[in-house]
Amino acid sequence: MMNSKLVFGVIGRLLEILAAILLLPMLVSVIYRENTFISFLVTALISLVTGIVLHILCRKHDRTIYAKEGFLIVALSWLVSSFIGSLPFFLSGEVPSYIDALFESVSGFTTTGASVIPDVEALSHGILFWRSFTHWIGGMGVLVFIIAFATNFTERSIHILRAEMAGPVVGKLMPRAKDTTKILYIIYIVMTVVQIIMLWAGGMNFFESVVHSLGTAGTGGFGTKSDSIAGYSPYIQWVIGVFMLLFGVNFNLYYLICTKHGKFALKSTELWVYICMIIIATSAIAINISPMYSSLSETIRTSFFNVTSITTTTGYSTADFNLWPTFSKGIIFVLMFIGGCAGSTAGGLKVSRVVILFKMIAREVRHLIHPRSISTVRFEGKEVEEHTQRNIANYFAVYMMFLVGLLFIVSLEPFDFETAVSVTVTCFNNVGPGFSFAGPMASYSEFSNLSKIVLSLAMLMGRLEIFPIVIFMFPSSWNRKK
Amino acid sequence: MMNSKLVFGVIGRLLEILAAILLLPMLVSVIYRENTFISFLVTALISLVTGIVLHILCRKHDRTIYAKEGFLIVALSWLVSSFIGSLPFFLSGEVPSYIDALFESVSGFTTTGASVIPDVEALSHGILFWRSFTHWIGGMGVLVFIIAFATNFTERSIHILRAEMAGPVVGKLMPRAKDTTKILYIIYIVMTVVQIIMLWAGGMNFFESVVHSLGTAGTGGFGTKSDSIAGYSPYIQWVIGVFMLLFGVNFNLYYLICTKHGKFALKSTELWVYICMIIIATSAIAINISPMYSSLSETIRTSFFNVTSITTTTGYSTADFNLWPTFSKGIIFVLMFIGGCAGSTAGGLKVSRVVILFKMIAREVRHLIHPRSISTVRFEGKEVEEHTQRNIANYFAVYMMFLVGLLFIVSLEPFDFETAVSVTVTCFNNVGPGFSFAGPMASYSEFSNLSKIVLSLAMLMGRLEIFPIVIFMFPSSWNRKK
Repeated sequence: MMNSKLVFGVIGRLLEILAAILLLPMLVSVIYRENTFISFLVTALISLVTGIVLHILCRKHDRTIYAKEGFLIVALSWLVSSFIGSLPFFLSGEVPSYIDALFESVSGFTTTGASVIPDVEALSHGILFWRSFTHWIGGMGVLVFIIAFATNFTERSIHILRAEMAGPVVGKLMPRAKDTTKILYIIYIVMTVVQIIMLWAGGMNFFESVVHSLGTAGTGGFGTKSDSIAGYSPYIQWVIGVFMLLFGVNFNLYYLICTKHGKFALKSTELWVYICMIIIATSAIAINISPMYSSLSETIRTSFFNVTSITTTTGYSTADFNLWPTFSKGIIFVLMFIGGCAGSTAGGLKVSRVVILFKMIAREVRHLIHPRSISTVRFEGKEVEEHTQRNIANYFAVYMMFLVGLLFIVSLEPFDFETAVSVTVTCFNNVGPGFSFAGPMASYSEFSNLSKIVLSLAMLMGRLEIFPIVIFMFPSSWNRKK
Repeated sequence: MMNSKLVFGVIGRLLEILAAILLLPMLVSVIYRENTFISFLVTALISLVTGIVLHILCRKHDRTIYAKEGFLIVALSWLVSSFIGSLPFFLSGEVPSYIDALFESVSGFTTTGASVIPDVEALSHGILFWRSFTHWIGGMGVLVFIIAFATNFTERSIHILRAEMAGPVVGKLMPRAKDTTKILYIIYIVMTVVQIIMLWAGGMNFFESVVHSLGTAGTGGFGTKSDSIAGYSPYIQWVIGVFMLLFGVNFNLYYLICTKHGKFALKSTELWVYICMIIIATSAIAINISPMYSSLSETIRTSFFNVTSITTTTGYSTADFNLWPTFSKGIIFVLMFIGGCAGSTAGGLKVSRVVILFKMIAREVRHLIHPRSISTVRFEGKEVEEHTQRNIANYFAVYMMFLVGLLFIVSLEPFDFETAVSVTVTCFNNVGPGFSFAGPMASYSEFSNLSKIVLSLAMLMGRLEIFPIVIFMFPSSWNRKK
């Protein structure tokens, strides 16, 4: 039997904490004297009551937890959070269709940032804040938050962290234990606050500074304007661009720097590949799009901002890259797949996985030329075990197969081929904007309900790296004998 | 030191045989009293003289051959064949640009069938025959031809066969030894002749029956009309459709049937997956496109023909699938990647590889749910070794990376994103037609020389499954100590 009391106990705990979290957007609504505060209050009460009931029902449970329970807890937590998160949108009436509200909530928590709301400027402050706040919570992981700050999670939580954490586990960058998690969260909060101050100091109003900083920190992409960041000053664009870059770095590196092991952080292969990739992509696109912009500084700023935004899978934009030449669109498309560093808030395949895949290929070629040579794959100063290599190659295959499967369903939409492909890719990698009808200046409002549900599933699969969702969908995992 | 005398000795041999092969299109030119016979004669003489010189220079050589030499022989043979094959196009003046002639020749030998000739109807009979004949030679492999019919190749030729053969090596379907190769070639010839007779009997003229049968057998796609097969009768379309299906099957199954082991052939997983895939794709597309066609029989025929053509990577068409709904285009796009069965003349990833990848994924998921279960991947009644599994997963990753690399260069063209993506995919998988500007009714004539060269490279890489070409490009493999 599965340890279902443990699973639902954790979900109960999550619901209680979500209720507490909902007080923040409620406070924003109260400050701006908006009626939406009622919808947050109602949602918080629903969440709290359900949470307490589950908590009480599942109080006495076996503390043993296996990988399987970890996966199930993660899948359920994200589904429950998405459901609770959708209620304020729907109850406030600002998102009249429930499917739309759910899409917006999933897009928020998974830090995708794809929106079904065509007119963002019409939203209340409370709802705008809530959209970005779901990014911020989802960026680090909804369960990481609980584990970092709740008292009764100890070693057993490692299975949950492992299932929720994105990216392969290689070298020094170990899955986080409880203590580390707390420190990482403090780093996250400090960086967010610094960004708020820098945006505010640059002339953005305080509310928008907060919304955009929360959206940047989670590498989400929800903002306050329909044209995203295009209308803001170059200073604001640079600040957000640089912070997106920073939030796409493996957080363990910041931890190493904080614990005075900065020299290890600077030796990270993933970090350098990530930085080089952004420099090369920015340069290539800048050269390619330069005829479209008047000054060199504007060209570089636009190229850097959008490259960083796509690489970190944030999805803010300062230009409609739909109108760029095919070469630039090709680069943007590939960056969507690669994504940011493992252990960051970014989505995608993750830089480290792509680097290891490349090294495996190089090893393969080397082996064909020199069949008797014994060669290993090394990454971050350590040998990558055969087991890990196999996992990475398999993950890549799984990733592509699910992408293709989702593409089939999405392609039933009466949109063109480019829209269908780019929308599936952008949602699966938690980026947000796509090409053609789903460009950076467009919204997903015209898509059918079927597509919205399929894309919501794609976002969840992408954020949780497929397996928790797949295991959740297999009924046999729910009642296996121990 | 590499055994370069052996390598160039084989190339010399190849050139002599190419000279003999060129007599066939020359004969066609003579029959139709066309001046093009001179260009075939000149090419044959160039090929013969170079061949004899190389043959004499490299007569005395060490007979030892390793995998590396196998790869180099294969890469060089295909480059040399493509060069020789391009000369008649260029010398006859029917393809005025040399790059175009090379593209057409590579497209022929790799059985891609992408053409740079906008007006196929204007070509002479000799050239039309030569285009399809390169498909027929390239389908089975230019070296398989030599090994099957030359006398001095014995066990050592296995390395060459292995390097040229497409698809993973699993189960009963072993790489072909010399005897088997001869039998397979005879089956190939008989099937081609049967198709010629069936087309001729159906009212197609004899010349066109030959050209289309050679193009079908090699799963190439060159024909005699700009609108491909669209103008022919339903009977002709069904015959070509069914023969495309037959030439996409693993030839070892026909060998088993001929040697009275037909029951093993019918147990082939790959065969059944291939057939089911075509049935499902045909049905799904038929339903999707039915409003566009007047009768049920036309809908099914059109769907079946184009599904089979794309799956077997032939590239003949009876409809412009560019105009189909996105869902159907999505299916066509995915079929381009999968391709036909291993050991057939078809390109793509190969059905067996995709099936094993799926089984590996299923094993991965099963292992996550039941961590203590020991599960293996079985295919064609045999356990797939870890080593083979790793090769397949790695090949998939290599395949995707090269595809993306080639896409970058192609996307420098001033075409739209859909054209760039589909052209790279269709050439890399040796299919032929793509979407948008490279649709089934269009030609590649408007592409730049850079793109034509890159796409030629893509076709060669796709046909030889990447590694021979990559090893050829690494200078270190040319002068390694033994």
